[in-house]
Amino acid sequence: MTANNLAIALVHYPVYNKHHEVVTSALTNLDQHDIARSSKTFGLDHFYIVTPSEEQQKLAERISGHWQQGWGAGYNPDRKEALDIVRVIPSITKAVEDFQSGFRKPVKLVVTGAAERSGSIALNIFRALLQDSEQPYLLLLGTGWGLTDECFATADIVLKPIAGNGIYNHLSVRSAAAIMLDRIRGIEREDT
Amino acid sequence: MTANNLAIALVHYPVYNKHHEVVTSALTNLDQHDIARSSKTFGLDHFYIVTPSEEQQKLAERISGHWQQGWGAGYNPDRKEALDIVRVIPSITKAVEDFQSGFRKPVKLVVTGAAERSGSIALNIFRALLQDSEQPYLLLLGTGWGLTDECFATADIVLKPIAGNGIYNHLSVRSAAAIMLDRIRGIEREDT
Repeated sequence: MTANNLAIALVHYPVYNKHHEVVTSALTNLDQHDIARSSKTFGLDHFYIVTPSEEQQKLAERISGHWQQGWGAGYNPDRKEALDIVRVIPSITKAVEDFQSGFRKPVKLVVTGAAERSGSIALNIFRALLQDSEQPYLLLLGTGWGLTDECFATADIVLKPIAGNGIYNHLSVRSAAAIMLDRIRGIEREDT
Repeated sequence: MTANNLAIALVHYPVYNKHHEVVTSALTNLDQHDIARSSKTFGLDHFYIVTPSEEQQKLAERISGHWQQGWGAGYNPDRKEALDIVRVIPSITKAVEDFQSGFRKPVKLVVTGAAERSGSIALNIFRALLQDSEQPYLLLLGTGWGLTDECFATADIVLKPIAGNGIYNHLSVRSAAAIMLDRIRGIEREDT
């Protein structure tokens, strides 16, 4: 069986804050739950939570652990199954290294944000690229006020932002992740 | 200009709890934020939060109010714009009544859940139905362990569940709402 060639990383550093300063953003409990559940639903095996803060790493482990052991695991086994794919990791580089094992081709970094950027590709094009199962892709999702310009400059692929049908475009990272996964991995059900 | 013929209602009653009892579920702060932002991004004008509990109604108003007035509104005006479309309302019937104004055709109720049901239609079929801008549709989203069987029995349209690509299918209501709105209102961007 081929290793799953798409993974997601939720990046808490390096990201911008409201004042365009590069910071480490704080974890959001529901990001971890929602994106784990969406990732699992769309067949991913790896969801990385990237933060260099040891305190925040421990918090992320505790959130997953609550549903993986003891009371939480028994109360809601579906939640356990989703959180089992979470890996807490200190940097994007470490996430790439981890995901690299099992693939010979180097992992390609894919980034996305709410703003239009030149050279970006549509999600349906990325969907087609994923058909080459030997090429691993790590999709970076920014928190706070978004991934730094350096992340965009060094990425292999920049995805176009999700388009609503108006000027307003302020999806949560949880909603954006769900829509992206659906567009690149989802299937359309037929009528009964 | 034609009134927007799709609205969403996040239903906290009547829904099931884990033991299949009909209950009023508790509000989740981030449901309100995320679904308001997704609704606004995909051009909706109405997002109803349905709960018969007066205490919970006050809480929902307070969550919206924090971002609509004073500090929050200045700090994050995008959040304000999304929460402006939220209406807190005691019942599904009241939501239908509210949404009915501006339309001559009766509002049709649309329901969705994680399980397969006979007679359900695919999201792309519903997308096509929405082209008739004189026909209003209210899409009900269940919280807790889902909308009651009575909601499904009395609905005009049952949508097929969102398909991942495996057996696991446990999206959060926030993620499911985002994916549904994208499928029925989103557009695919072209490559640059």
